[in-house]
Order: sequence, then C-alpha cells, then structure tokens
Amino acid sequence: MSEKKVILTGDRPTGKLHLGHYVGSLQSRIKLQSTHEQYVMIADAQALTDNYDNPEKVHENVIEVAIDYLSVGIDPSETTIFIQSMVPEIHEIAMYFLNLVTWNRLKHNPTVKAEIRQKGFGESVPAGFMTYPVFQAADIAAFHADLVPVGDDQRPMIEQTNEIVRNFNRIYKTDALKEVEGLYPNVARLPGIDGSAKMSKSLNNGIALSEDLKSVMKKAKKMFSDPNHTNIEDPGQVEGNPVFLYLDCFCSDTQKLAELKEHYTRGGLGDGSVKKYLGEVLVEFLEPIQTRRAQFEQDKGEVLNILKKGTVEARKKAAKTLAAVKEAMHLNYFK
Amino acid sequence: MSEKKVILTGDRPTGKLHLGHYVGSLQSRIKLQSTHEQYVMIADAQALTDNYDNPEKVHENVIEVAIDYLSVGIDPSETTIFIQSMVPEIHEIAMYFLNLVTWNRLKHNPTVKAEIRQKGFGESVPAGFMTYPVFQAADIAAFHADLVPVGDDQRPMIEQTNEIVRNFNRIYKTDALKEVEGLYPNVARLPGIDGSAKMSKSLNNGIALSEDLKSVMKKAKKMFSDPNHTNIEDPGQVEGNPVFLYLDCFCSDTQKLAELKEHYTRGGLGDGSVKKYLGEVLVEFLEPIQTRRAQFEQDKGEVLNILKKGTVEARKKAAKTLAAVKEAMHLNYFK
Repeated sequence: MSEKKVILTGDRPTGKLHLGHYVGSLQSRIKLQSTHEQYVMIADAQALTDNYDNPEKVHENVIEVAIDYLSVGIDPSETTIFIQSMVPEIHEIAMYFLNLVTWNRLKHNPTVKAEIRQKGFGESVPAGFMTYPVFQAADIAAFHADLVPVGDDQRPMIEQTNEIVRNFNRIYKTDALKEVEGLYPNVARLPGIDGSAKMSKSLNNGIALSEDLKSVMKKAKKMFSDPNHTNIEDPGQVEGNPVFLYLDCFCSDTQKLAELKEHYTRGGLGDGSVKKYLGEVLVEFLEPIQTRRAQFEQDKGEVLNILKKGTVEARKKAAKTLAAVKEAMHLNYFK
Repeated sequence: MSEKKVILTGDRPTGKLHLGHYVGSLQSRIKLQSTHEQYVMIADAQALTDNYDNPEKVHENVIEVAIDYLSVGIDPSETTIFIQSMVPEIHEIAMYFLNLVTWNRLKHNPTVKAEIRQKGFGESVPAGFMTYPVFQAADIAAFHADLVPVGDDQRPMIEQTNEIVRNFNRIYKTDALKEVEGLYPNVARLPGIDGSAKMSKSLNNGIALSEDLKSVMKKAKKMFSDPNHTNIEDPGQVEGNPVFLYLDCFCSDTQKLAELKEHYTRGGLGDGSVKKYLGEVLVEFLEPIQTRRAQFEQDKGEVLNILKKGTVEARKKAAKTLAAVKEAMHLNYFK
C-alpha cells in the first residue's frame, strides 16, 4: 500500500469562517481527509504578524475557527487540527530558513507587496509581516507536505518555499526537506453577497457559517443578482449571477435548480422568488452545521482537548523534521 | 540580601578566542561571575546568520570557544555557559518580537548597516542577518538581563532591545520584560600585533589563547612598536605603543614595567629587548591557560557535560520568560 500524501492547510484566526471558506477550502478538506494525511493549522502566530496589537481577537478566533472546522465535518480522527503557536519546532526551523533568503528577495515578493499596499503599511510594515513567507515555508517544510491548497495569488509563496527547500538541501547536503506542490482550486471563488469578487470582513458582504438563520434569509433577499433584470417578465442572466453561483454551490436538488435556471433565462421568474429559495437552501445547509456548533459551544473543553491532541500529533511530526534539519546543520552537540 | 544582577554576554563561535577577547571581555567575566548571575552564550545561531554555508566551522568553534572559556577561568559553577541554538525558547520570543519592529527600523540600524558594508553583502544580505538585532533582543530579554557588556559600536543594539521591550510591555499590558543597560568597557581595546586598532582573523594580527607558545614568542618579536624609534640610543615613545599596551595588560611585575617604560622613554632600550620580554610575559600568562586547555581537550565529554548542564539551566530561565510572554499575548489556550 502506498503512503498517503501529506496536505498542510489552515486559516488565520481573525474572524469566523463563512460560506466562501466552505466553498473555497472546507469542503475539499472534508473530501480529502480520508485519502490524505491532512494537517489543518490554525495560524495564530501568522495572524499576529498584522494583528499583533489585538491578541485577544486572535485568541478568541482560534476557538471559533476550531468550532467551525468541527461543525462542518472536519473529523479530528482523520485530520490533525493544531494551533501554530503551540508547535515551536516550526519557529525554530523558520529561524534557520531566514538565513537562506535575501532581504531583497523578500522585498520583491508580489503577494506580500500587494498585501502591504492593501493594508496601507508603507515603510512601517512589521518585520514579522515582511518575513512571513519564510515562516510559511517552515510550516510547509515542517510537515513534509506534498500538497498545499492555495489560491492563485499564493503561487509566489509556493515558489518561495521550494526555493528555500532546495537551498537548504543543497547547502547542507541533505534530503531532509521536500518540495511541495500547490493544489490550485478548480472551483470559482464564491462572490460576496454584494456581487464583489470575494467575501471580506471589511466589506461586510459575507455569510458566516455561524450566522443567525434569520439574518441568512435577510441577506439572501438582499443579494446582488442580474442588475439588468428589472422586469420579472424579461429574461434574466444566470451566468455570473451571484444568486445562481450560490445555488450551484449549495442546492442539492439539481433538477429543481436546472428548472429555475431555465425559467429565469426564459423570463417570468422574479429575483425575489429565486432569492427566497436561495435563503431556504442556505438555511437547510447551515442548520445541521449550527446544531453541531451549538453542541461544541456547550463543551469548549472538548474542543480544547481536540486541539491539544492535534497539537501533540503535529509536534511529533514537526520535531522529526527539526531533528533532521539540525542534524544537517551540525547543530547536534549533545547527541 | 539583595538579588544579584543578571548579566548576559557571549561570543559568536567563528574562531578561537584571542588575547583581545581576554582583555575586552573574558577577564571582566571572570571578575563579575562571583558578584553577578552571569550567563555566557555561545551564539551559534547568530554566527550562522552570516556563516550559514559553513555550519561545520560553527559547530567546531562552539567546542573550541567553550574550552577557551573554561581554560581562562570562567567557572561553570558560577557562570551558566550555554549554546544559543539549544535554547529554542529564545527563538520563539524572537518570532513575536519581529512583529514589534518595522522593516524600516531594521534597515536603518547603524551597526547592521556598517556590518553589511564591511561584509560586502549589498542587496543580497540574508534576512537572518538583517533581523539579527531582533534575535539579539530576544536573547537579552529571555534572561531578564540587567546588564549586557558591549562595545561602543553596539549601543544601537541596546537601544533596539529596549525599544522592543517597551513596545511589548505597552502593547500587551504587562511587565513581563525588563529593560537592559549596556556595560561599556573602561579598558582600551587591545590592538593587533601589527598596530591596527583591533585583532581580527582576516588581518591575521592576533594571538590566540591556544596559540603555540613558540609562535607567541615569534609574534611578540614581530610586534609593531614606536615606528620612529630606529636607534636604540634615541628616546622611544611608550604612549600608544602596542608593545607597552600589551605589557600593561599582561605584565604583573608593575615595578619592572615602570622601569622599562622609564628606560625606553629616556633612550638606550632597544625594541628587541622589550619585545623579547613581552614574549616571556605572554608565555607566562598563557602557559597555565594552555595546560588547562590540554586537560579539557583530553576530555571533551566533560566539556559537553558542562555545556549540557548550562543549557538546561538557561532553558529554565528562558522558559519562564517565554511563559510570561505567551501569557501576556493570550497564547495560553491549554492552561
């Protein structure tokens, strides 16, 4: 039997997860957990690089994100869920990686450059933020990951990781580290309810997995659809219409959905009705998730136990890599 | 009884220690170890920031430097000698410190700028080297050091450390960390045997503590003295004369030294005679050190045991600081 491939993935705990996360990553994690050795990291240390002045928020969201994971069906008996800051072996590997990347290279990382602009950091970008690609490389390398699911905008991160891995193996004459492949999404990103390309907290255009169900119905009703479809009788456009994009993701009654699309395209189907139906579909999707969420919220001790167990597992794996890293670097005085 | 003040000091293990180290730092460590809680760190992780491609050299010199310490009289029952890379608690603290320093601030650190020029790094300076002041701040903070003996050129490092400490305590509403004071040398730096300001490996103008004694005699004979003193009969200049600077440091017969100076100043005392005497003085100084060195070289296991014990001690101290750091940052999920 061949060994399972290793996946490392995770989220920055800066807010509750939303439907966009479900479509973009959670559902694929649920699918992959039985066929892969999957590590899901709650990246609190990385979240602190640009939230260093709000550690309470990060702490709180570590627990919230963990509950989101468990509620949607990430199964701790199949997936190792762990907290990044509790695996110091990663930080130690990162420190040695910092020597293998030039300052100049970091300065020109396109993803980081875009984020610096977006966050308005300018020259006062924290060194921790500027160097986070190196820490990310350590996350990936520490777990000997074969695959890292990332968005297209994260390609430079995968390149940076493999550059470090190759440098390390070459300089220290070892095969202790492994190159990784990006696992790029084959689903379109779920747009915000306002039709903008992405759900984002700052735009307040998302639907959280833990969103109150009445609020879900309301948000569905307010969703952006075909802006040219002003008369019910007129034909509407399905393609690129956020309401139908959502239905494609969450409606399990494919026959009904096909009929709706046909009707909408033909004309005579109002946006109000489709949106109401979407609301019902979303409520049906979210209800069982929220029932499980309520149970975990009642028993946070159990959530912490799951995280603790996952973190112990994760440390074991990362410690092996760290030992190989230090051995290759001759940092083995006491063996 | 008041608590002892804590000193953190150390060396980068990139070569054997020499007479310049003895005068500049080792003798003061020997003096301070009974009155202070002293930690002496062999900074292998820092050495790797600009020797990342030569880990064998760093490894080897960790042991050599430890033997130098023990040979000159740094007493492991009074001083905690430890290896930096073996105290991962420091690296973890450093990671969080990286968030509290801007990229811009690092770029303008005058000490680092000068070193980058000197080492010819240019734009390809490793990120690990560029960020080393942050890691140094973590070294100091991890041990709650009151005092760090540093050269004048290291003042910016002390400032950077205290800036981080103040930021940390303010942002995380804590008094977990302590500001440090630089302990600036009150002795002049020992010049190289060629008269240049500093002993340095690249100039090959030093005398190692482990230097072969015949070579010591030879080097003493070749020392730079008063360049204008070409005739024995003429008066020579004592002030600023390296031969006499060395004698000031290592000659214990103060009366004889006073007489020599007087004679040299008056005229009639040749440089050859003074240098020969200096050679004898240095041999007398180095002989017992080298006898102890030979014993430790015979028993490297004992040296490693001392380092191991020191490292355990150091980890205890650093772990306390790390716990306080993580508590203040709300990184305390499992407590």
